[in-house]
Amino acid sequence: MIVEMRKGASKAEVDQVVKRARSLGFDVQLNCGTDMVVVAILGSNTGQVSTDVFAVLPGVEAVARIMKPYKLASREFKPQNSIVNVNGVEIGGQRIVIMAGPCAVESEKQITETARGVTALGARVLRGGAYKPRTSPFSFQGLKTKGLKMLARVREEVGVPIVTEVTDSRDVALVARYADVLQVGARSMQNFTLLQEIGKSKHPVVLKRGLSSTITEWLTAADYLLAEGNENVILCERGIRTFEESARFSLDICSLPVVKKVSHLPIIVDPSHAAGHFDLVPAIARAAIAGGADGLLIEVHPNPQEALVDGLQSLTLQNFEKLMVDLRKIAEAVGRYI
Amino acid sequence: MIVEMRKGASKAEVDQVVKRARSLGFDVQLNCGTDMVVVAILGSNTGQVSTDVFAVLPGVEAVARIMKPYKLASREFKPQNSIVNVNGVEIGGQRIVIMAGPCAVESEKQITETARGVTALGARVLRGGAYKPRTSPFSFQGLKTKGLKMLARVREEVGVPIVTEVTDSRDVALVARYADVLQVGARSMQNFTLLQEIGKSKHPVVLKRGLSSTITEWLTAADYLLAEGNENVILCERGIRTFEESARFSLDICSLPVVKKVSHLPIIVDPSHAAGHFDLVPAIARAAIAGGADGLLIEVHPNPQEALVDGLQSLTLQNFEKLMVDLRKIAEAVGRYI
Amino acid sequence: MIVEMRKGASKAEVDQVVKRARSLGFDVQLNCGTDMVVVAILGSNTGQVSTDVFAVLPGVEAVARIMKPYKLASREFKPQNSIVNVNGVEIGGQRIVIMAGPCAVESEKQITETARGVTALGARVLRGGAYKPRTSPFSFQGLKTKGLKMLARVREEVGVPIVTEVTDSRDVALVARYADVLQVGARSMQNFTLLQEIGKSKHPVVLKRGLSSTITEWLTAADYLLAEGNENVILCERGIRTFEESARFSLDICSLPVVKKVSHLPIIVDPSHAAGHFDLVPAIARAAIAGGADGLLIEVHPNPQEALVDGLQSLTLQNFEKLMVDLRKIAEAVGRYI
Amino acid sequence: MIVEMRKGASKAEVDQVVKRARSLGFDVQLNCGTDMVVVAILGSNTGQVSTDVFAVLPGVEAVARIMKPYKLASREFKPQNSIVNVNGVEIGGQRIVIMAGPCAVESEKQITETARGVTALGARVLRGGAYKPRTSPFSFQGLKTKGLKMLARVREEVGVPIVTEVTDSRDVALVARYADVLQVGARSMQNFTLLQEIGKSKHPVVLKRGLSSTITEWLTAADYLLAEGNENVILCERGIRTFEESARFSLDICSLPVVKKVSHLPIIVDPSHAAGHFDLVPAIARAAIAGGADGLLIEVHPNPQEALVDGLQSLTLQNFEKLMVDLRKIAEAVGRYI
Repeated sequence: MIVEMRKGASKAEVDQVVKRARSLGFDVQLNCGTDMVVVAILGSNTGQVSTDVFAVLPGVEAVARIMKPYKLASREFKPQNSIVNVNGVEIGGQRIVIMAGPCAVESEKQITETARGVTALGARVLRGGAYKPRTSPFSFQGLKTKGLKMLARVREEVGVPIVTEVTDSRDVALVARYADVLQVGARSMQNFTLLQEIGKSKHPVVLKRGLSSTITEWLTAADYLLAEGNENVILCERGIRTFEESARFSLDICSLPVVKKVSHLPIIVDPSHAAGHFDLVPAIARAAIAGGADGLLIEVHPNPQEALVDGLQSLTLQNFEKLMVDLRKIAEAVGRYI
Repeated sequence: MIVEMRKGASKAEVDQVVKRARSLGFDVQLNCGTDMVVVAILGSNTGQVSTDVFAVLPGVEAVARIMKPYKLASREFKPQNSIVNVNGVEIGGQRIVIMAGPCAVESEKQITETARGVTALGARVLRGGAYKPRTSPFSFQGLKTKGLKMLARVREEVGVPIVTEVTDSRDVALVARYADVLQVGARSMQNFTLLQEIGKSKHPVVLKRGLSSTITEWLTAADYLLAEGNENVILCERGIRTFEESARFSLDICSLPVVKKVSHLPIIVDPSHAAGHFDLVPAIARAAIAGGADGLLIEVHPNPQEALVDGLQSLTLQNFEKLMVDLRKIAEAVGRYI
Repeated sequence: MIVEMRKGASKAEVDQVVKRARSLGFDVQLNCGTDMVVVAILGSNTGQVSTDVFAVLPGVEAVARIMKPYKLASREFKPQNSIVNVNGVEIGGQRIVIMAGPCAVESEKQITETARGVTALGARVLRGGAYKPRTSPFSFQGLKTKGLKMLARVREEVGVPIVTEVTDSRDVALVARYADVLQVGARSMQNFTLLQEIGKSKHPVVLKRGLSSTITEWLTAADYLLAEGNENVILCERGIRTFEESARFSLDICSLPVVKKVSHLPIIVDPSHAAGHFDLVPAIARAAIAGGADGLLIEVHPNPQEALVDGLQSLTLQNFEKLMVDLRKIAEAVGRYI
Repeated sequence: MIVEMRKGASKAEVDQVVKRARSLGFDVQLNCGTDMVVVAILGSNTGQVSTDVFAVLPGVEAVARIMKPYKLASREFKPQNSIVNVNGVEIGGQRIVIMAGPCAVESEKQITETARGVTALGARVLRGGAYKPRTSPFSFQGLKTKGLKMLARVREEVGVPIVTEVTDSRDVALVARYADVLQVGARSMQNFTLLQEIGKSKHPVVLKRGLSSTITEWLTAADYLLAEGNENVILCERGIRTFEESARFSLDICSLPVVKKVSHLPIIVDPSHAAGHFDLVPAIARAAIAGGADGLLIEVHPNPQEALVDGLQSLTLQNFEKLMVDLRKIAEAVGRYI
């Protein structure tokens, strides 16, 4: 950490900064420039200390952080790529994994039809929400336990792993019984007690990026899962909130090379929630694969016009089929396959 | 809701829109312009139906919403201002309520000293966090139950109502035993199961605005509390996330007149989290009162340099004293008092 | 345009809305719902009228726009794709065009070396700034006329068309003498008198998206060029300003399918300014081609460590060579070529 | 500037950083921590050097800036508040200055009626646009020279100084002949050649903040004016672009204490453009005065329903009268007057 003292800061003020740094176990080096004194605070754990600890002291002008606040999710901590194994499906390896399915489980028929359809076309994980966090209390909230049971049945029948969202720390054990991968939604990314419960479960988990979270906050949230000993963490970029309104969210394509650079965790992309409209999904999906995504999480519904949730952003099976053809070509162009 | 058909949409496509609207119990009126057909869908519950229900149909170009998605929080639903009574302290009336205290409860001594200090200067509710949702798992997470007990003791001793955060649906009953007002933090604004539990508790609650939530989403989240029969809802503006970095968040001062216009709920402002730095707090606090806030939630610490959390944005008791002098003048200038 | 009247609006208020609409030459249809009256205002030019014209009238609750404010840039106005011809290089056709070169022209040697290098590797247009709009007045502002002359000389020598920025309406004629394509930078996107001068020149122009401009504003700015009779307009997505700081700007990948859907204009992508760091450029460039871009504008410098401007985001010729190999594969995967 | 070397950076790489810093005339101090080397680069002009100069070197992980890039606008450069004198009206002193008038000059009658009205109520500068930068080329673009002449006539008649916008560097001399204060609009904040022309004119100038400009960029743009010797610079906060849509822009109230802390320039607030709707204007105006603004720029129109531009955000004279009563009370509460 770099503490810049105000011009004219007294020796006593500088000493107080040094003393506090040493009391926390850090090394200190002083730079006495012509205009001001700069104190460098050194040590491998400075990332875990708030900059406020120094900024609040008298005579301090500003404090700049050098170490990132996340640790376990960083590539410095673990240089080689992590691969998450979901019942034999590897996420983060050379093969790109397509997860597809409806936003919400609506009926036995709907989820079975989708499962058969998307797996036949190359999807290797089935998505489907039983617990739906909805903006309004008057909207459909999901089939809950009933939906989980439908997912479990279709998993057995079709032989496909399931990813489904969990929204409450009380439900982690229950959902983990039925699902192969737990999903933490964007609105729950900083629900820290939920993260801790999932961390303890050691269950594979997709951690969606919060809609206004920085990449640094996202990786620090991943640290909550990793700190409990759960190494099966998959990141999912799904678009951030900006001023632009033509798509539902702005997919942050730059997050792909950034995450690959600073973290060892696999990262997938959800083009459907970013797009908000099915006819924007294919271009975003193609871009994601070209940009380095390890997988996609795509909404597919056998009959989007009748969908209870997010029908507008769901692909039909016909559209999904066309997309898969394109995605296989892009995957090959970047030296991978689907 | 207004459904704009694509140019050249067929009669069958228009009919399908009309049919779906009628199946949901709505009135329909057709506008056949020179260029395109526009379908107006009318009824008092259109706000509770997703625009996707129509946008997904063939031949539809766009769907615009006229009714807001929130209902119980709207001024149309309840034209007169709501006043929340917290053990005799009324929030939303002519008298402005100052809530003050440390970010986190750290010790018996710290919380008692602050409670005595701020109440002597005119604060009428004590704030203090026992459960601290922290970005990093390696940061201080609050004293939890031990902190709650300290708050309860100081409440008895000093005779001041307590507001404290609850972050997990499992803790609602526990925290409600010790606190007069529950606080839902910005990161929990869309933790819907938490909102439902607090709704059921009927306990007074401060609902902070999510750091990237629109006012519409905020009021729709309030509907989760109100729908469970909890009418003791206080909104709290605490700054939104923007590209500007000189303050920690950008306080959305416009939210004050907007909320007053569209909702009956009282609204307070947290200048400390928006500012991120104590020397920006007074100007924001003054502006909030002038802009129409019903109260403030301010961080005060007897010794910010030793604070475990957010010391940089905490006022000393001396600074708080000076601020209260200024705030009383502003309150008077807008025809209110503190 | 759809005008929603307030609940309980009087007949006189509704009549005033109708009267104003008719005075502007529009058709009107009334929808009298159970709760409120809605007035649909129809006509092919409603997009050119401000919503304020109606919103300001008494009894009006809200006004929603159906027609977009841009007209000449819209696909409705011109359904088939526009192709811009720059001395035989077609932009917007099946072949993807790579434009490459340094941020700023620095010397005869630097620009010639880059021009030879990038064209040998497949770039078909040379970029290079002679007028550099810089955030600080104390930064290098470009070689100006001297730089233009260097560009002209290298164009002749190497036989490559030139794209260069113009920042002042007074310089349009001058820059147009030396450059094949004028570039309007992000900070000038709404410099309307500059747009009008360039429009009159009929010169091919790259219109960069403003860093906080919506796609709608961008296309409406394009209307300034088109309205003067200049049909040689190329759009350039270069990233928008958001809260995320790991890249310099957030490239809005969704803008590619959105623009392709609503406009006939070709669109290219500048991955370098979005990235801000050379090692993020390849992933963004690949994603842009996969997402549907008609071309790229890439910063390449023979020796980025000595660059006067934006060295950090410039590729070396070696890195550019590697990137071109990858881009050719992606182009083929989407049925195009470079 | 603080240069953090990558873990394991070689001595040769560190030496190259040191060498480059010294070649630019800076002092250097090395901090060799347990994990990495940090190079502190010291000198009073480091703010004027791009961080890229070091970030581009091999072995460098990150570069953090300590000095701000603006210099002449900083309080360090000039500790005492600047006061701008406009024909005897002082901006930046204890007396708060209200500037009011229509968005656009529309007719002799309209501007005269407004000028008489607002000055009678306490406004001391008249605003009115002759050149209107409009998003669409099909919108009313202002009366231009004709409008300037109307402003000049009313100035003489009513005896009130005029502030009006200039949008093109070619028009600076012309507009300066008619106006007492030139206005640089938000979309022109980084039109650097325009800033330079105005700088040379030495004319008082209101520099509006760009709608997505950071405070640092805004003050650096002010440096363009100051660097030409024009010390009559007035900053104007008018709202920034965020995701929130209930107001037209989000007024950044925190910018007031931030600017007062880091700069010596006076700052006024435009509540009308931020609000976008007249009924939000009074609360924002009151908050601005309470937050420390040196003045306001308010849109007032004798008949907003007939306004050609921005009628929805314009106050009637009746509403302006009521607002002035409130503002005087707030001004007094903060120890100032109007």
